[in-house]
Amino acid sequence: MTCHMMTRAERAQLAMMLEVCAFPKPGNVDRCHDYDTTRLEHFLASTIFARPALEEAERGEGRLGEIIRHAVSATNCHGGGNTHFGAFILLIPLVYGGTIAGALKAIGRTDVSDAVAFYRAFAMTSVRVHADDELDVNNPRSLQILRERDMTLLDVMQHSAGNDMIAREWVTGFPLTRRGADLLKSLGTGRGAIAQAFLTLLASEPDTFIIKEHGTEAARGVVTRARDVLDGKVAIETFDAECINSGINPGSIADILIAAIYIALGEGWEWDF
Amino acid sequence: MTCHMMTRAERAQLAMMLEVCAFPKPGNVDRCHDYDTTRLEHFLASTIFARPALEEAERGEGRLGEIIRHAVSATNCHGGGNTHFGAFILLIPLVYGGTIAGALKAIGRTDVSDAVAFYRAFAMTSVRVHADDELDVNNPRSLQILRERDMTLLDVMQHSAGNDMIAREWVTGFPLTRRGADLLKSLGTGRGAIAQAFLTLLASEPDTFIIKEHGTEAARGVVTRARDVLDGKVAIETFDAECINSGINPGSIADILIAAIYIALGEGWEWDF
Repeated sequence: MTCHMMTRAERAQLAMMLEVCAFPKPGNVDRCHDYDTTRLEHFLASTIFARPALEEAERGEGRLGEIIRHAVSATNCHGGGNTHFGAFILLIPLVYGGTIAGALKAIGRTDVSDAVAFYRAFAMTSVRVHADDELDVNNPRSLQILRERDMTLLDVMQHSAGNDMIAREWVTGFPLTRRGADLLKSLGTGRGAIAQAFLTLLASEPDTFIIKEHGTEAARGVVTRARDVLDGKVAIETFDAECINSGINPGSIADILIAAIYIALGEGWEWDF
Repeated sequence: MTCHMMTRAERAQLAMMLEVCAFPKPGNVDRCHDYDTTRLEHFLASTIFARPALEEAERGEGRLGEIIRHAVSATNCHGGGNTHFGAFILLIPLVYGGTIAGALKAIGRTDVSDAVAFYRAFAMTSVRVHADDELDVNNPRSLQILRERDMTLLDVMQHSAGNDMIAREWVTGFPLTRRGADLLKSLGTGRGAIAQAFLTLLASEPDTFIIKEHGTEAARGVVTRARDVLDGKVAIETFDAECINSGINPGSIADILIAAIYIALGEGWEWDF
């Protein structure tokens, strides 16, 4: 068996693929569950189409904001909508920089052109922030404000860190990504470890995507229920059904899990169980 | 939504992904079923790792035999064993040539170096032909015989066409690939059409992979059972369970289906239902 070294881009694609296949992941698309308009195949098509942008990141040329825009643009060509916006925000600096430390260095070098490119990427998705925020992507003046204030993409993330756990990863040095990777390594190999790491993150952090869509109360409820499952008080199938019935989809924790799988794979964690 | 044109390599990857996700596909790995040692994730990892070889084919440089060897080598790096050998034999000339006609032209230009490279690829898989055949990959003299007889890769396929339906596609102009693509287009969009096309091919052609593993009788039995399902006499779940219980895996028809999806996608068939 002649084996080639996996490239970072391939490792990122592998992380995206492994995350969406792992099951059960309460409330999310997984091997056992689709949403009506976003299905397993959409996530896997995005995994395939993301490669050129991930390779661009791996070459370490170009600018982070523009590469994120390329990734969103390339994966936006199917009916499943935005599948990996949050994952790209984490993966692209990680692939670019090679490690968390390298990612933070690259993040520190972003400028207003990255912020503008990122807003252009944002505008291609249906993800929304706060309508009453002057920096909301829906505000037609937002690009002008970014330029007037000469905001870097890191400044933008700083602005959003309070209510977005993906932005918070940029600002605080990828602590949940790191925790997820450590969890995977402690939990064993393959899909079982992925599903368990997902549940464990869910039980410890309110998902900010749920907060945006359903409010803080709902997000806290998910943390409590995930703990109940970990404590053996509730069956995971029950929790999954509850999430699905209330349209609750812990999307940001899934994005962080992808980044965690990427890091863990780079540190020798075995996906092939 | 800014959309890029899908490359041929991406289209081939999409075909590989869509085929393995579609369900139910009696006896095969699909969204609802793994084998103990070969799982959904292995097929999808191969889909990711195949890209450089598929891009090589798309550039139309290099030689078919060598590109097939690269594809097998790149996708052999996981514990799931050979997942797509037959699919690569079909996809690589199709990606290389752009169309079935183009593929046949490329196939006509193969020489003994392609045959030798193909045998090297073959030796990396656990697929076996006929132990009593002097051209069997296990015969240590087989490469020497290829060279002595100056056999092209098309000659090798001609040699195998009698008992291998993948080889037969090369020799006879991809008739089952063509039929599969037409079936998909007549059956509608997405995964439902894929599963139905699989069953329809299964009901019309004995799978030579089953013949090699279980004999002609077993392969004919699968054709009959698939017809029973199409006629509404047997539930597809029953047929699926029968295949799994007897370890029957219609692998060659799955490979042909991948090539059919590739062709259909190129002709405007919609995967996104």
